[in-house]
Formats: sequence, structure tokens, C-alpha cells
Amino acid sequence: MIITSSDNKEIKRVSKLNSKKYRELEKEFIVEGEHLVEESYKKGLLKKIFLLENENIEIDIEKIYVSYDVMKKVSNLDTPPKVIGICSLLKEKEVGDKVLVLDGVQDPGNLGTIIRSAVAFNIDTIILSNDTVDIYNPKVIRSTQGMLFNINIIRKDIKEEITKLKDKNYSIYTTNVSNGIDIKDVEKSNQFVLIVGNEGSGVSKDISKLADYSICINTNKNVESLNVAVATSILLYELR
Amino acid sequence: MIITSSDNKEIKRVSKLNSKKYRELEKEFIVEGEHLVEESYKKGLLKKIFLLENENIEIDIEKIYVSYDVMKKVSNLDTPPKVIGICSLLKEKEVGDKVLVLDGVQDPGNLGTIIRSAVAFNIDTIILSNDTVDIYNPKVIRSTQGMLFNINIIRKDIKEEITKLKDKNYSIYTTNVSNGIDIKDVEKSNQFVLIVGNEGSGVSKDISKLADYSICINTNKNVESLNVAVATSILLYELR
Repeated sequence: MIITSSDNKEIKRVSKLNSKKYRELEKEFIVEGEHLVEESYKKGLLKKIFLLENENIEIDIEKIYVSYDVMKKVSNLDTPPKVIGICSLLKEKEVGDKVLVLDGVQDPGNLGTIIRSAVAFNIDTIILSNDTVDIYNPKVIRSTQGMLFNINIIRKDIKEEITKLKDKNYSIYTTNVSNGIDIKDVEKSNQFVLIVGNEGSGVSKDISKLADYSICINTNKNVESLNVAVATSILLYELR
Repeated sequence: MIITSSDNKEIKRVSKLNSKKYRELEKEFIVEGEHLVEESYKKGLLKKIFLLENENIEIDIEKIYVSYDVMKKVSNLDTPPKVIGICSLLKEKEVGDKVLVLDGVQDPGNLGTIIRSAVAFNIDTIILSNDTVDIYNPKVIRSTQGMLFNINIIRKDIKEEITKLKDKNYSIYTTNVSNGIDIKDVEKSNQFVLIVGNEGSGVSKDISKLADYSICINTNKNVESLNVAVATSILLYELR
């Protein structure tokens, strides 16, 4: 059977997963395209897939065939993919030794890019403040290039978590564009927390206070700051 | 006088500057918001501004007052700014000693972020291939955070330009994710060209061939590649 109507009950339900509220209610999210479907399958998070009629994909999971118009209705992309997967939410694990804390990152592309870089530079755990953009936002997922499934991501009260890790002797680094020590001159550590902040306002004051070191990247004085995903990536590159 | 109608001839003309074709024809582009207006003024590129009625800005330039609805019509932002500036196109200058070549970068956010990082790490000149996204695209301009005005940007046949610089003994670095030397192990140079490529396909083959060194960034093997703006920024950080 091929679903050809957007009024189909299951299609209506799945389309709603494009909104945060509904994702939290259903405890599911959407991934688009073969690469992300395969990555989610490998991690045991894939529940079913919607495939364009006449397409196939070698995965042992429930398959529902749909017309191009139905795929277009569910997809967030200008050109709908051949496959869309429905996944269970990621499981939160114990905090590891190399931790990145995001305090209010707002742009989905920035969050996705940061997740991708965090995996590249062997970060174990990312802790998101409650006002950081949703990781299941379609633009975030796309920007991670599938790396979302290769790292432990936790959403919690960051003040409480940083305080706990500080008590366990993790080195706590925060970023400070105007008043930090050059990352090249900072003592490295095998157990650390790097805190980065909002695109406009940086790390909030009460969180900054918890840090052992304020660090920065040495740049040309004409430049007030780097893009947050770039700055985070360079700091992780140096701290790894 | 306050322009309150979007049918005003000048408003219609300026709105068209949101399209690349019209920017090339008129040799003008738009900047939005106080920061970018001020930066373009400092560089002598600002020709006139459109201001929201009841707003002011201390700049000695022709001012045209408009209603909120007219500003909304011209602006690319969800929330229109209080001021929009009309600028002459940037002047192309001689190629400097530290050169970045972009071979087919497609995403406006990536290009803007790369320009911002290039200024931060003291690059003199960016050479864009003809198929790289337009620098006057509103999303590019926004992502540069005003840094567009602090660097020499040239659009030219990159093969020809790289060949010329190679003859002048510039070191030519290209990026190669699967087969490059770790940037940490590469001989640095005071006169160099770094070539980075398209988001999906990287640097094209006939351009790669011109390079003296293929370089990469050492990452976790799970990660195929970094975001192009992140990778470029880390390489510029190392090469400066």
C-alpha cells in the first residue's frame, strides 16, 4: 500500500513532529535522508521509515511507502528526501571526562555544527542549558551530519551540573572575549568542562563565576568575536 | 517627508537590491542595522540611509525617513531594523601575502563566517571562485558581522590566480580530508594561499593539482569532515 493522502492519520501525526511541543509529547523525532536514517538505525533509535514509492533501502525495520506529495508534506527540505525516519529520543548517559556546556546557544546551525565538532575532538558529553535550542530541531539535526548519534547529550540545570563537576575536580573553563587568557597559555587537563555562551551575550555571569579559568582565542583587534561554533571548535581543538 | 508607500519609486528600486542580478546592474547593495551602516560609512561605501520615522543616527549622509511597513518591505529580517544603508560595491585591491581561496562555497552563512574568521586571523585577501555564493547576499553580510569591510575580497578565475601566485613562490595549501598531512606537521610560510572547497565535494581536482601541500585536521575517525567554516577557521588559526 502507498499512502497518497496528507489527510492520512499517521501522516498527520508524523508531520506534527516538526514542532518541539509535539516531539516532547510523543517522545519521537524525525530524521531526513538515507545517511541519518542509517545512523539512527545503527544506534537502535529508528522505529519506522517512510519511503518514496519505487525506492528501497536495506534496513530491517517497518517500511511505509508514500507518494512524493506526502513526502513533501512531512519533509522540512526544499527537495524532499527519498526516506524519512521516525526515531526515539536519545538516551541521556553518565557525564564523561571531557564536557562541553552550552549556555543559551540560539541558532540551530550553530548547535548542529558544535555537536559535529565536539565528536571530531573527542568530547564525551554535551550539557545544554534549558534555554539552548532544541537538539531535535530539523536544522540542528541536519547540521550535525549524523554526529548527533555519536555523543552523549544532556539537558539539565547547568549551574547544578557544573558545581557537581567542580567538586569532582574537573577543570572549569569559560570563554571571555575581552578579558580571557590565551588558550595557548592555559594549563590543559584530562577532566574538564568548557562553557560557551549565547551568540550575542556570551556566558551568563552567574555561570562564569563557577569557572577556574577565563580563556580566549588571540585574534586581530578589529574582530570583536568569532562565530560561536567556530570559537567552540578551536577551543575544543586546543583542549583535546 | 516620510515615505509611507511601498509603491514609491525609490523604495521599489531599493527592494530590488535584494536580488543578485539587480545588485550587479546597479552596482549597489544593502546593509541592515546600525552596526553595518556605521562600518560601511567608515569605509566610505555608504551612499544614503533609510531610517524609521522618529529614529536618528549620527552620520553625515543623505537620510530618507520611512514608515515601519516600508522598512519591513525592504528588509530581509523578520524584525526590520531601524536603519538600512545603500552602499557601493567593495573595491577589489591587489592580492596580499596571506590569501584564502574559496572554490565553490555554497552556503551564505558559511561564507559570512569564513570572512569573519579570515579577518580575525589576519588574512589579506579572499579570492572567490565564480561559483561561490555572492558576498552581497543579505545572509552573507549578516554572518560577517561587519567584517566584510575589513578585508580585500576578489572574484576571479581562481585557477589563473593560484598559478600566478605559485609562480611568485607563494606556498599553496589545499585541504584533503582523507589524504592530507596534519596541519600541525606542515611547514608554515609568510606568503601562502589556502584553498578550501565546496561543502559536499571539497576542492575540485584541477585546482587541487596546483597545491604544494595537501593538509587536514586530525579528528576522531567517526567524523568524516568538519563544517567548512570551522575547518577553514582552524586552518587559518594554525597558519597565521
